[in-house]
Amino acid sequence: MSLPKRMAFFVSDRTGITAETLGHSLLTQFESLNIEKQAVRFVDTPERAKALRDRIDRHFREDGLKPLVFSTLIAEETRAIVKQANGHFIDFFEVFIGPLEQELGVKSSLTAGRSHGLTDMVEYSRRIDAVNFTLNHDDGSTTAHLAEADIILVGISRTGKTPTCLYLSLHYGIRAANFPLTEDDLEDMKLPNSLRPYQDKLFGLTTDPMRLAQIRHERMPNSKYSSLEQCDYETRQAEALFRKLGVPYLRTTMKSIEEIATTIIDMAGLEKRKVRPHRPQAHV
Amino acid sequence: MSLPKRMAFFVSDRTGITAETLGHSLLTQFESLNIEKQAVRFVDTPERAKALRDRIDRHFREDGLKPLVFSTLIAEETRAIVKQANGHFIDFFEVFIGPLEQELGVKSSLTAGRSHGLTDMVEYSRRIDAVNFTLNHDDGSTTAHLAEADIILVGISRTGKTPTCLYLSLHYGIRAANFPLTEDDLEDMKLPNSLRPYQDKLFGLTTDPMRLAQIRHERMPNSKYSSLEQCDYETRQAEALFRKLGVPYLRTTMKSIEEIATTIIDMAGLEKRKVRPHRPQAHV
Repeated sequence: MSLPKRMAFFVSDRTGITAETLGHSLLTQFESLNIEKQAVRFVDTPERAKALRDRIDRHFREDGLKPLVFSTLIAEETRAIVKQANGHFIDFFEVFIGPLEQELGVKSSLTAGRSHGLTDMVEYSRRIDAVNFTLNHDDGSTTAHLAEADIILVGISRTGKTPTCLYLSLHYGIRAANFPLTEDDLEDMKLPNSLRPYQDKLFGLTTDPMRLAQIRHERMPNSKYSSLEQCDYETRQAEALFRKLGVPYLRTTMKSIEEIATTIIDMAGLEKRKVRPHRPQAHV
Repeated sequence: MSLPKRMAFFVSDRTGITAETLGHSLLTQFESLNIEKQAVRFVDTPERAKALRDRIDRHFREDGLKPLVFSTLIAEETRAIVKQANGHFIDFFEVFIGPLEQELGVKSSLTAGRSHGLTDMVEYSRRIDAVNFTLNHDDGSTTAHLAEADIILVGISRTGKTPTCLYLSLHYGIRAANFPLTEDDLEDMKLPNSLRPYQDKLFGLTTDPMRLAQIRHERMPNSKYSSLEQCDYETRQAEALFRKLGVPYLRTTMKSIEEIATTIIDMAGLEKRKVRPHRPQAHV
């Protein structure tokens, strides 16, 4: 017998990113249940709020279970409407804003959309610049401005270098380059020449050989490239090279892109290296 | 006289993404204050918890104000230690997990790191594939697989197409391509030939001409490309073209990358188009 379905709505005046992050985090604590998740963004008029209220009520009637409503709604009016529905309302702002106002001794601004809006042009430009830098320095495509990199990820093919670099630049404004290790590099146990001047910026990525073979197999089935022997050899050599040179490295197996990225920030002390902290604006 | 500084810590057993998102969102409601923000990730041992407790106490003594502590710590032991400090402790899990357990009728798993971990290999592969698709279809670089795109952003130079596409693919696993509109396209008020078969996938980006001139000026000072006349002309023509063809479009001025991305998902109905909803795993 399958579990009864229950809806969960992530509701927001604006992008919904905060409500989704919150809601998802909480729901990972209840993974045995059959919960269907849905984001409802830009609920910024009474009409949209009423439509949502009716939708929640409809699900309650159909499923026989109260939908969960994770809300970062700020406007009193829309919030009051959505709260009329037969849902389990989890009101992020109500719970925390009051106590914070007391501790801080000021009233909150209660302005919808402040948090994911573009409040800081300098920060925005920095992120776009970092993304462009990363795109220009993907997979060793150029070494022209490596001196300007905040970090250079090195590793064999298919260890997650590119998405990790993009995450670091898009979210944290970190100028992240990446560079492949070739078979020659591995055989000679040496860094590519162009990386030698930047050894203190290097960070290694490796992965589990089995998993690597799987991933490579999807790309080039039954090739030497995707064979377990080859993946095993490359992984061992790469890790030996990192250890020999004292390059910090991370096994990316079973880690999500955000885990890899934040672990690198932590291990490489990237926040301390720069004057201002890298706030993850993408989540702000 | 400058405002007294108060520290805010975003504390987590793992990546800290949830704690940061939460904390930042709340703090945007108190922007008049001088709050210095700091992420403290991977607080997963009593030693790390004690170091943090001491750090909070040190700031309290130095600043004379209780640091704010936004916590998604799950383990009882580390949480108890951090709570001993002289901080204003905002405990995300304690507040919400209890009521949720009651409503859902089950106990939570209370497993650290579940939320940003790699729980879903299929989802991970989908995101990586989408990122690769986006990289291969950036700025009209190829039209080979446009039929497989979920969405194709079109617009004149410097309207935010590339970062928006990367955000859509990296976070939502959406296969987002982008394509530039050239002067010829604008003059003839026609789509590039290669886009014609995919008109229902198009989404336009434009921006404010003044802002565009500013951005282009940084790249190519005192050029025709960056002149206000040119930016004004291109913007007007592009918007006229979108209207003529019925292509939905968005002015990106003063919007953050995440706002642009989520607005596009909303306007283009991207969540409904696919069988399974695009969960923003990056925030999960």
